[in-house]
Amino acid sequence: MKIDRKGCVLLARQYSQRAKSVSIQSSIQVPPNSRVFSLVQPTGKIHLGNYLGALRNWKEISNSDSPGTEFIFGTADLHSITIPYDPKELKQFRYEAIAGILSSGIDASKCTVYHQSSVPEHCELNWILTCLTSIGALNRMTQWKLKTKIEQNDSIFDDEIMGKTKAGLLCYPILQAADILLYKSTHVPVGDDQSQPLELCRDIANTFNNRFQSGFFPLPQTLLTPAKKILALRNPVKKMSKSDKDQSLSLYMTESPESIAKKIRKAQTDSIQGKIYFDPENRPGVSNLINIISGLTQKSIDDTVTDLEWIQDHKQLKDHVTDLIVEEFSESRHTFNQLMGDLAHIDRICQQGTEKARAIASQNIRDIKKLTGLD
Amino acid sequence: MKIDRKGCVLLARQYSQRAKSVSIQSSIQVPPNSRVFSLVQPTGKIHLGNYLGALRNWKEISNSDSPGTEFIFGTADLHSITIPYDPKELKQFRYEAIAGILSSGIDASKCTVYHQSSVPEHCELNWILTCLTSIGALNRMTQWKLKTKIEQNDSIFDDEIMGKTKAGLLCYPILQAADILLYKSTHVPVGDDQSQPLELCRDIANTFNNRFQSGFFPLPQTLLTPAKKILALRNPVKKMSKSDKDQSLSLYMTESPESIAKKIRKAQTDSIQGKIYFDPENRPGVSNLINIISGLTQKSIDDTVTDLEWIQDHKQLKDHVTDLIVEEFSESRHTFNQLMGDLAHIDRICQQGTEKARAIASQNIRDIKKLTGLD
Repeated sequence: MKIDRKGCVLLARQYSQRAKSVSIQSSIQVPPNSRVFSLVQPTGKIHLGNYLGALRNWKEISNSDSPGTEFIFGTADLHSITIPYDPKELKQFRYEAIAGILSSGIDASKCTVYHQSSVPEHCELNWILTCLTSIGALNRMTQWKLKTKIEQNDSIFDDEIMGKTKAGLLCYPILQAADILLYKSTHVPVGDDQSQPLELCRDIANTFNNRFQSGFFPLPQTLLTPAKKILALRNPVKKMSKSDKDQSLSLYMTESPESIAKKIRKAQTDSIQGKIYFDPENRPGVSNLINIISGLTQKSIDDTVTDLEWIQDHKQLKDHVTDLIVEEFSESRHTFNQLMGDLAHIDRICQQGTEKARAIASQNIRDIKKLTGLD
Repeated sequence: MKIDRKGCVLLARQYSQRAKSVSIQSSIQVPPNSRVFSLVQPTGKIHLGNYLGALRNWKEISNSDSPGTEFIFGTADLHSITIPYDPKELKQFRYEAIAGILSSGIDASKCTVYHQSSVPEHCELNWILTCLTSIGALNRMTQWKLKTKIEQNDSIFDDEIMGKTKAGLLCYPILQAADILLYKSTHVPVGDDQSQPLELCRDIANTFNNRFQSGFFPLPQTLLTPAKKILALRNPVKKMSKSDKDQSLSLYMTESPESIAKKIRKAQTDSIQGKIYFDPENRPGVSNLINIISGLTQKSIDDTVTDLEWIQDHKQLKDHVTDLIVEEFSESRHTFNQLMGDLAHIDRICQQGTEKARAIASQNIRDIKKLTGLD
């Protein structure tokens, strides 16, 4: 289930556009009394891409001043079984994802932190929404086409692909919608690649509201976050991915400073001499490193490039990136390792999170069942 | 979502073949220590077709001598939302389905009687199995093609139909498999039209067993029951259906003797004079009435026709059918009305059933989550 060359080009283009258009905010404002919801897939060790693309944003959002706002974060473990996987690895990755969330600075006493699969109401709502969602809408999803390698401009059904593909991959965005709507979430921090599933979620919420009770589900809003799409170090046309078997492509939160330095040294750059500049199409490796710095320092690409005017060559750039990453992860690496040394503690935190999540979910699913005639 | 002419002809053919091939058994044997599972859709009032096709068989099976065998029966309310429906009607039909089950003679103190939607583990297992089932297998299901009017011999995907059809209808048989496997059921009493979904259920069980733990799910066996496919009285080429808006087509368990007599009088027969005989292709109306008698008396079609030699004309035949139905339903009509007058009592029975069902389901889903890495 690898993303092919076409998918890579598309990713690179999206990334190029986003780098130019998204202005970097140093803090994210959420209106009071909101409910912010997001999950991360436990498909591998937490890497720099996860951190800059999701976890650090979660921390910032949940630490922002927003009276009465609730924060629900967790692992999307039910989504990670839509592609082939190893059950033992999944168990381990679930722990690592929670440890990653917590060591990124998310406060479990303020936020709900849990595993999606521990709240059965996700699957209950998923089925109800499956009965409201057309197969055509699912077949139009860009992520579905990327994952199954259906041509992006194909609106029809590909017999061979549909024939052999598991239904879970097609229905993936319905479960995403169920996740969000189960808590009547108002805000969802997402990256570019999630804006289409969130649009579908709003469509499904509208369908439900029109069919059963006007206004039952609030339409969840996209929370614009300064999310960074970090690309693979040694192959900077594809996204840094937890599910990548080649660990030299990614930088993990738990890595030693030596290992980080070594990987950055081997990161692909280019043979262009002189000043560095940002050009993702022609200098994907260098631009990826600039993007990492921009993410870590929370400055725009333009400001970052200006800041980096003192840099003379690739080596200086790489040393600088290494220093920043080592510094950023120095505390979280320590916390992560502590947490992973006490899995019972992680279990207790998740247990508390599950109870908090179910308190909301069970009330909402009761209401939903009454509205739909199932109670 | 009506069954079209092609579907009708197919049904009539199946019915004709089955009438000839299935030998009528007066009692059904289940091996000791089995677990028998079946659900009925709460899509309308309980009619003669439901009674002869399912409920009476459930009663007979659950009253048969099978030490240590458990019986789980209920409403498939989560399946009934895969087609457009009215939530208020569904709520009513759920009560009527339970009242129908109980008044058919199923003993709630011996059997588990409950609503599918009240056990969230059905939906949890459904999602896990959705990730193991190919879309191609779903697209090959005869019932799916009938419901969406896809040509039966089409193996490809129909773009227009797939585009507008809800995913719940496509995924219908996965939820059926989840229902059965959730309880590690060993036997499922089914009619002809359910043998293909049960075959898929076994395929899915095999996939799970191969992937996670050999032998975890027993492969559920079809329990051959003397099920009768009863056709609509005034249009005996289509099945008697709960979802039919025209109530003159069906005979309900709760109808007064006068109403039953009136409907049977108006049942379509033919203009062939003299002795009655069984010929579903050329005498569908008369054959449907003979089939009803065969079902009620639990005798084969041949024996039934022999028994009916004294009958001279259609009027005598109709009077005889009326007498038999009125007699068969006299007690259950009374019980049904009593039950429907005390919905709190039905709620209590279902509550007890839910607790018994969940005791099995929650243990099994825990095991399944451990095997799949979700716990």
